[in-house]
Amino acid sequence: MHPDLAFAVWAQERQRRVEEVLDRSLGGHDGAPGKLVEAMRYAVLGGGKRMRPLLAYAAGELVDASPDVVDGPAAAVEMVHAYSLAHDDLPCMDDDVLRRGKPTCHVAFGEAMALLAGDALQAHAFAALVSSRVPLPARACAMLADAAGAAGMAGGQAIDLLHVGKPMTLPDLTSMHRMKTGALIRASILLGGMCGRSFRAGEEASLDAFARAAGLAFQVVDDVLDVEGSDDSLGKTAGKDAAQNKPTYVTVLGLPEAKRHAQALRDEALAALVPFGARARRLVELADWITQRTS
Amino acid sequence: MHPDLAFAVWAQERQRRVEEVLDRSLGGHDGAPGKLVEAMRYAVLGGGKRMRPLLAYAAGELVDASPDVVDGPAAAVEMVHAYSLAHDDLPCMDDDVLRRGKPTCHVAFGEAMALLAGDALQAHAFAALVSSRVPLPARACAMLADAAGAAGMAGGQAIDLLHVGKPMTLPDLTSMHRMKTGALIRASILLGGMCGRSFRAGEEASLDAFARAAGLAFQVVDDVLDVEGSDDSLGKTAGKDAAQNKPTYVTVLGLPEAKRHAQALRDEALAALVPFGARARRLVELADWITQRTS
Repeated sequence: MHPDLAFAVWAQERQRRVEEVLDRSLGGHDGAPGKLVEAMRYAVLGGGKRMRPLLAYAAGELVDASPDVVDGPAAAVEMVHAYSLAHDDLPCMDDDVLRRGKPTCHVAFGEAMALLAGDALQAHAFAALVSSRVPLPARACAMLADAAGAAGMAGGQAIDLLHVGKPMTLPDLTSMHRMKTGALIRASILLGGMCGRSFRAGEEASLDAFARAAGLAFQVVDDVLDVEGSDDSLGKTAGKDAAQNKPTYVTVLGLPEAKRHAQALRDEALAALVPFGARARRLVELADWITQRTS
Repeated sequence: MHPDLAFAVWAQERQRRVEEVLDRSLGGHDGAPGKLVEAMRYAVLGGGKRMRPLLAYAAGELVDASPDVVDGPAAAVEMVHAYSLAHDDLPCMDDDVLRRGKPTCHVAFGEAMALLAGDALQAHAFAALVSSRVPLPARACAMLADAAGAAGMAGGQAIDLLHVGKPMTLPDLTSMHRMKTGALIRASILLGGMCGRSFRAGEEASLDAFARAAGLAFQVVDDVLDVEGSDDSLGKTAGKDAAQNKPTYVTVLGLPEAKRHAQALRDEALAALVPFGARARRLVELADWITQRTS
């Protein structure tokens, strides 16, 4: 099989897999009100690239983790991601109406229900995290919490909000994005890496270096796509950052330099994987996917 | 020392203790934006009865748990409670301006920051949960998540929202409150009970029976106080349920019967503690405090 095709098959299998785990995790909660569960399912299921779960499964392969041990963390990081989108799209935040090619959660279910669906999804993420057959160490819970909290995703969002219309230096922008999107991407990878055999000397640091570079590369490409993409290709509102007067890698570096920066981060990510040899194949492919994507 | 005084001293010591744990947990996160941390601290510190932490410490005493092992769960349940208040008070939910005698979080910090502060607090709750010296079992994480999620607190909120202005039967009201406030109170007690020696036969079921009855008693008293209390005594807007046309124990049962119901639930709670003997002293006192409180 051609390598690209082999990757596509691998990715599709895992996307289908995590979709089933998410579907199962978000069904049949005794007494949970139907409308809330519907809003949660709407926010999570039937869309999205599932990049974070794919990274978790791929990192799991480095440590010979069986996919069913990675299922819990994979679903958990996707739920945190989905909850953050539902909350970001609310009128008091980015006030957006289109997400994954569909009306945003609050457009479909009302603001209060979208808020609660996001809240509940964050809780369910932690339930999913510890739902695997093989229990993860307590630091897995702390890792997801830190990635989602004030020094992670929520903190990055807050910095983003506080800088609308204000100039930002490259170091500040980088630090914001390390928190806003980088922290959860990093957690996806490191949690996957906790699902198998113990790390050998230096492996965790190498994986972390990969995770940091890949997370930032994702955001730089996101900023480029916000300028170059269309609503249709992205499934969300294009040109949103510029319209909201937000600093991005494109506004700070200019478009050509932003593209070069993404490429440099990809190279940095791949260099960090060298010690893992062939076992890192899927992570290498995912780094390419992240930097070459058009949506 | 008079028993009431001994309880007051015990409670004050634990309130001070959890305040310190919360203060420490919500300070000094590398890179976390100051404004967000300020909003989180505003939502959590310097107010509140700390009933959930007190219940956790008291339940810990049943199983000879050292207070420093209970600190993590105690702070965790309070953070979940505080986040839920910050979100409930938002304009798209209850739209309230007064909480714990102060302007609500979004009045003080703006809607977006209050939303993010709540989001971050929920994440930090899970970090706090696993922060104790002695690691809790993975089911502790699942228990807090279930209590906060769609079949717990968030689900109860959603049912509440969906029933504004609609009649409710006593069983429906009870089921809503078991989720909305009961689930987190129950988790506070059961998590405290996970912090020490293993349960002996029947003990966990007894503690759970106590937790369920005490959680419901709290809500019935809350509904009574909403009618009988003033803004000043409650530190929040009184008469809010009636103004929002929400079904409560008072609207469903009438005031005298609601008070009798609270008393019956207190008796049920105390009966469940009999097997624990004198070790349950603080839980007995807390059940009395819950049902006799005026704020």
